[in-house]
Amino acid sequence: MDERAALRLLAADLPGAGDDAAVVDGLVVTTDMLHEATDFPAGTTRYTAGWRAVGASLSDVAAMGATATCAVAAYAATELDASELGDFVQGARDVCETVSAEYVGGDLDTHSEFTTASTAIGRTDDPVFRSGAKPDDLLCVTGELGRSAAAVLLFESGETERANRLFRFTPRVEAGISLRGVATAMMDSSDGLARSVHQLAEASDCGFELDWDALPVHEAVSDVADDDAEARSLSTYFGEDFELVCTVPEADFDAARDALGVPLTAVGRATETTDILADGDPLPDRGYTHGDD
Amino acid sequence: MDERAALRLLAADLPGAGDDAAVVDGLVVTTDMLHEATDFPAGTTRYTAGWRAVGASLSDVAAMGATATCAVAAYAATELDASELGDFVQGARDVCETVSAEYVGGDLDTHSEFTTASTAIGRTDDPVFRSGAKPDDLLCVTGELGRSAAAVLLFESGETERANRLFRFTPRVEAGISLRGVATAMMDSSDGLARSVHQLAEASDCGFELDWDALPVHEAVSDVADDDAEARSLSTYFGEDFELVCTVPEADFDAARDALGVPLTAVGRATETTDILADGDPLPDRGYTHGDD
Repeated sequence: MDERAALRLLAADLPGAGDDAAVVDGLVVTTDMLHEATDFPAGTTRYTAGWRAVGASLSDVAAMGATATCAVAAYAATELDASELGDFVQGARDVCETVSAEYVGGDLDTHSEFTTASTAIGRTDDPVFRSGAKPDDLLCVTGELGRSAAAVLLFESGETERANRLFRFTPRVEAGISLRGVATAMMDSSDGLARSVHQLAEASDCGFELDWDALPVHEAVSDVADDDAEARSLSTYFGEDFELVCTVPEADFDAARDALGVPLTAVGRATETTDILADGDPLPDRGYTHGDD
Repeated sequence: MDERAALRLLAADLPGAGDDAAVVDGLVVTTDMLHEATDFPAGTTRYTAGWRAVGASLSDVAAMGATATCAVAAYAATELDASELGDFVQGARDVCETVSAEYVGGDLDTHSEFTTASTAIGRTDDPVFRSGAKPDDLLCVTGELGRSAAAVLLFESGETERANRLFRFTPRVEAGISLRGVATAMMDSSDGLARSVHQLAEASDCGFELDWDALPVHEAVSDVADDDAEARSLSTYFGEDFELVCTVPEADFDAARDALGVPLTAVGRATETTDILADGDPLPDRGYTHGDD
């Protein structure tokens, strides 16, 4: 059973689950476990790991259109090294600072593998769910795609400093707040653009048509991809970019884009059917899923 | 470096850390990572694991005197088995129900070892810290001690059904709320009574005198301990009982005890010195610390 099958099994039981973060009593809450084998390539510094682990949870808060209140992280390593732990905490604090949240500590453990579990908490009385997309809404993404895919390839080729820098993304909390009240549906791109679009379609009961040429591809992707097809694949399916993927009524798009501190790009449009197409061809529901390999 | 050394190193940097839960903006937040090798003896069901993992975090919320709002958990196993996962979630939901909190889901991952990380969130504008004990306050504990120690020994001897039952404790949220405004200092006994008393002493800058005969020992302890000395040791040093350890002014004790739905037992008294004694002998600062073995 892969993660999505397990999540489907649980969704019926847990009404608060099934979106980027659970909503309860004016709070949004989200937790993520990351570990060395699957999430931190060789060369990832503990500073970057702390930044990225906590940033992944803050990205889920952003995807609800909430303000970010605070984050905690559990840190487990084969041995507790003071310098590594200090670096991790510094990274966690610094990413919190970028979104005006407070890092308030966590738990320590020894474990057979470097493992972190971060939880972020935000506030909003008006969360943006995945389920509100309407036909003809523009499908939009913040920032650029492929950044993490490029980083992983750069780790493999030994360019660890640049890779670490690319791995330390700014969670789109400010953009999420700005899009609240405008976006009809929103989530983050942690599982890749393709999977995100499929999830928005399922939650909103609509289809999508994407325009390949509109995709905002991160400049680092061209340095690692052999050709345009690979660049597109890295930007669409790899995921872990932690950009926002949302739908915005066409009439609101220009104002929403101009109000944002980061780029907002329309890459397609919601449709009446349930087909999910890119330049007319079916877009595979393919991406990063824990537990399926 | 063991966990306490690492925590000391971090405490200076993280003002929100160093108590049972971090306090931020009217919320208390706490996270705990547990894993098979150290926290779930062979025979522990996934239902019990879900109950206990989330219960451990709810216990930290209780120790702040806060109401419990919600909890999330990350669940990682070597493979995602639907039945095991369902049992875990049911246990997590059921322990939340005992304290009127909502279990709102979490994250799934595959991992080399069964590992959970739970986070609980509570609310209070008036948290009880570890630092307020005054000389002559009575040192009190809720419920009974040694329950988890007995359970671990029962797991070893194959009495898994009884052991699982003992492992599923009720977090003392209701008692914590009742003690708010009365208790001058409070924490939970997750690291054992002895270590808790040392931590209260350090935070409150006082000493303690314990009375061995006053210790409320769980009835299961007598079934697994060979003699009174072993029973005392299991009740004092093993920990993971998740009872509340607090200090209460003597004048308030009777009313506080009578208002509680669970037993509240005075087991000693805070003192002016920094000595920590039991029946006149030094009480070792010994207990359960991750990372020191």
